Amino acid sequence: MHILVSNDDGINSEGIYALAMELRKIADVTVVAPEKQMSAVGHAITVQYPLRVNPFYKNGELFGYAVDGTPADAVKLAVKALLKDKKIDLLISGINHGTNTSINIIYSGTVSAATEGTILGIPSIAISLATYAPNPDFSFAAKFAVKLAEFVFKNGLPKGTLLNVNVPPVSENEIKGVLVTRQGSAFWDDWFEIRKDPNGRDYYWLAGRFINYEQGDLSADHTAVQNNYISITPIHFDLTNYKAIDELKKSGLENLLKSLDKD
Amino acid sequence: MHILVSNDDGINSEGIYALAMELRKIADVTVVAPEKQMSAVGHAITVQYPLRVNPFYKNGELFGYAVDGTPADAVKLAVKALLKDKKIDLLISGINHGTNTSINIIYSGTVSAATEGTILGIPSIAISLATYAPNPDFSFAAKFAVKLAEFVFKNGLPKGTLLNVNVPPVSENEIKGVLVTRQGSAFWDDWFEIRKDPNGRDYYWLAGRFINYEQGDLSADHTAVQNNYISITPIHFDLTNYKAIDELKKSGLENLLKSLDKD
Repeated sequence: MHILVSNDDGINSEGIYALAMELRKIADVTVVAPEKQMSAVGHAITVQYPLRVNPFYKNGELFGYAVDGTPADAVKLAVKALLKDKKIDLLISGINHGTNTSINIIYSGTVSAATEGTILGIPSIAISLATYAPNPDFSFAAKFAVKLAEFVFKNGLPKGTLLNVNVPPVSENEIKGVLVTRQGSAFWDDWFEIRKDPNGRDYYWLAGRFINYEQGDLSADHTAVQNNYISITPIHFDLTNYKAIDELKKSGLENLLKSLDKD
Repeated sequence: MHILVSNDDGINSEGIYALAMELRKIADVTVVAPEKQMSAVGHAITVQYPLRVNPFYKNGELFGYAVDGTPADAVKLAVKALLKDKKIDLLISGINHGTNTSINIIYSGTVSAATEGTILGIPSIAISLATYAPNPDFSFAAKFAVKLAEFVFKNGLPKGTLLNVNVPPVSENEIKGVLVTRQGSAFWDDWFEIRKDPNGRDYYWLAGRFINYEQGDLSADHTAVQNNYISITPIHFDLTNYKAIDELKKSGLENLLKSLDKD
């Protein structure tokens, strides 16, 4: 089994190191990841500028390849250039340092790398450790990633679908189980702090707090993780709200041009 | 009616100018947009750095506010800071210079601005002119945006749903009508051109061609536009593939931790 590993925290982060080292016990692993931290970049790709690739060494050994772009860039470049002639059985993005549940999925570079893998036809997984505490222990999440890799290698994934996995930041014996979940509806109540720079000019800094109104509902990813379950949400990149299509047709939207003619 | 206008081509682009000037005939309009071109940034937001805002003048008049961030940043900053105490009835992002159909929706900054509006509870529309030709005529698309704005103001939108609109680059009398569509499955067959810089080092540049296997199917956004229909796709930001939840549960994914215990 050949596994491509990427992330959005950058190739020098602890989470990708723990993941790659654990996966090497069961598979050939190629690491291609952004050279710098790329959180909250969403599904950005670089089209206006060229990309550079540099080998990245860790503990005196070649660990992987650093790309001066986004997570989606790193995956595209790995699949379409660096590993063009090699079969890739699986892509795993992570282990992210921080939660990627509910609305955070939209902003997440970790998820974006796995989405790009799915677009390119590779079974893909995004995995995050649900804590912002400094220096968390990634070892259980890495062990779980290995089991999940074996599961997906054996069972495959539904077409066009990736798994978004969040692991609670607790010890192994406190974890209650695994739940297949949906993207929750928790959201950011955010605001901008307006401050003055040393020259007296305003600048705006985003701040916010995360609000979860689905406290009791374990079908929501965020609630599952808060209750010490590993959440696994199948996500896809068809953003169509199919239920709304009929509603809009009935509302007369398709006749809008006729009203334009009358003016 | 108070309309917030943003885009991803930057505040100095022709498309946002055509849109804002036309909307001013029917509403109060506030323009808050990225100061620079921000195509293919996806749903990136700026959390590590502060943002700056500058008034932007055009033809000797205040046209709007330029933000040194992404489209999603511009919308968040407009709603949560600049216009905090004002009601916003509608957000329109565009008019993008280029097609935003099928998989392009994932990468699109134009759509991202409208997605952020939807997240913040504002009825939102993304509108694109489906051509990459230089200096296209945005006037019909702008006129159509006005009609659509009036329609949405009157009828509202399904909860959590925005409209992604693509207008064919043809004259008004060649347009066949309006179709409510789905995100098509056309995709990029892409590759990287590997070139040498003046110092002999490799760089990688993304290239690609867009392939549409749904030529006859007018329910797909891309095909509708190619056939001179205005396509309107309702999209949302719940990425869950609900159909896959049961399938994954049946496959035993929730028992994965038990297999971990046995090791």
